[in-house]
Amino acid sequence: MNYRIRVEYEGTRYNGWQRQDSTGNTIQGKLEQVLSRMVDCPIEIQGAGRTDSGVHAKGQIANFHLNPPHSEKAPREIMAYMNLYLPEDIRITNIAVVPERFHSRLNAKGKIYQYRIWNSDKADVFERRLVYTLEDRLDVKAMKEAAVFFVGTHDFIAFCTNKNKKKSTIRTIESVEIETMGDEIRITYRGNGFLYHMIRIMTGTLIEVGLGKRKPSDITGILEGRNRADAGELIPGNGLVLVEVLY
Amino acid sequence: MNYRIRVEYEGTRYNGWQRQDSTGNTIQGKLEQVLSRMVDCPIEIQGAGRTDSGVHAKGQIANFHLNPPHSEKAPREIMAYMNLYLPEDIRITNIAVVPERFHSRLNAKGKIYQYRIWNSDKADVFERRLVYTLEDRLDVKAMKEAAVFFVGTHDFIAFCTNKNKKKSTIRTIESVEIETMGDEIRITYRGNGFLYHMIRIMTGTLIEVGLGKRKPSDITGILEGRNRADAGELIPGNGLVLVEVLY
Repeated sequence: MNYRIRVEYEGTRYNGWQRQDSTGNTIQGKLEQVLSRMVDCPIEIQGAGRTDSGVHAKGQIANFHLNPPHSEKAPREIMAYMNLYLPEDIRITNIAVVPERFHSRLNAKGKIYQYRIWNSDKADVFERRLVYTLEDRLDVKAMKEAAVFFVGTHDFIAFCTNKNKKKSTIRTIESVEIETMGDEIRITYRGNGFLYHMIRIMTGTLIEVGLGKRKPSDITGILEGRNRADAGELIPGNGLVLVEVLY
Repeated sequence: MNYRIRVEYEGTRYNGWQRQDSTGNTIQGKLEQVLSRMVDCPIEIQGAGRTDSGVHAKGQIANFHLNPPHSEKAPREIMAYMNLYLPEDIRITNIAVVPERFHSRLNAKGKIYQYRIWNSDKADVFERRLVYTLEDRLDVKAMKEAAVFFVGTHDFIAFCTNKNKKKSTIRTIESVEIETMGDEIRITYRGNGFLYHMIRIMTGTLIEVGLGKRKPSDITGILEGRNRADAGELIPGNGLVLVEVLY
């Protein structure tokens, strides 16, 4: 039986989603540990988004298979078991039985990520683990102008840390929305997929536009140049959250 | 010169607001430490509400006096200094010069506190430090009926941990509002003042009504009986936040 779960986590304490061969403390590792303990044999879990170290999730999607007799358990029982034994910074918010062939990552049609910048000297104490604090005032109007250039289908090789040079770096971004709420600037990215570090480098570049170090129209040239060195800095993961996976 | 500050804190790591003679880690202690270091002499600070261990604040108000030459600093400079040296879970959100006789506690006309109950098996990971998690389903309608009996001027001696038997335990509660938002139940108390542990015991009693252990109308009898043993349990401080001090 194939189960799809929706997972919420605060990434602060973790080395990202993906299980590591070494002794990494990862979200995938924690989930697999609890499931494997429940059924008393190793269970592998597939996540839709491989969030980096420190990155959070509100709506990560993952799936895993259970065989009889374990698959006779009611899904809500499995969810209750997992929530009981998972640490308090990881929570399953939904579970469903899905077709055998469903694969959380391969079937995903898109994702929504959000990057939160706290544009003041000190972050709201209740949000401090979820935002990137930047004291220098940003020109949000310029950032909005720049963001438009990301929308569409482009080769984003300049905006990623390229680990596998054989894989396509072409992605389609549907929208980049920038909202301000008091001292906070919230950037929401919606696209069919994102490369390694892509959102953190795109946001880093938008910040440099907001600081007046680059012009909004520079984005086009960076995309065309296909050179990582032309794009902005890789900014910290703690301001980033995987909001939703689209199917 | 007399300064009024608005303070926000996550109380998780602290032994409450009030400075202690022993080695207590308190909010007041942290603020006094930073201010005293700034002016190189001991500064005492007065807080409007003496929040308990683990209790949070969005709008705590405090005041302190500075003499020349320190009072020549611009208030915003003092605020920036404090925010720089305070830990990341305490933040000054406003500062103003006020009349010499202003006293944050003695001049306060009322306070708004909020208690947040997460009525499910596991709390939202992003809110987990700010809510009290209770799995057993609460009857919110019954709780709302019970809350009405708290409104008005009453002797709340049954709903407090009475430390000083000479002081009046009569208080006026203007309103108790109960809202549900998904799995969360949020109770907002507005009154002219609250006794030691009063909100945590009132909320504990409302929870017992919600669990069907008491009837809503029992509140009147408990108030009239003036006996702590008749009221509900003292519940944890981590679900409580001082929202605002009214002047």
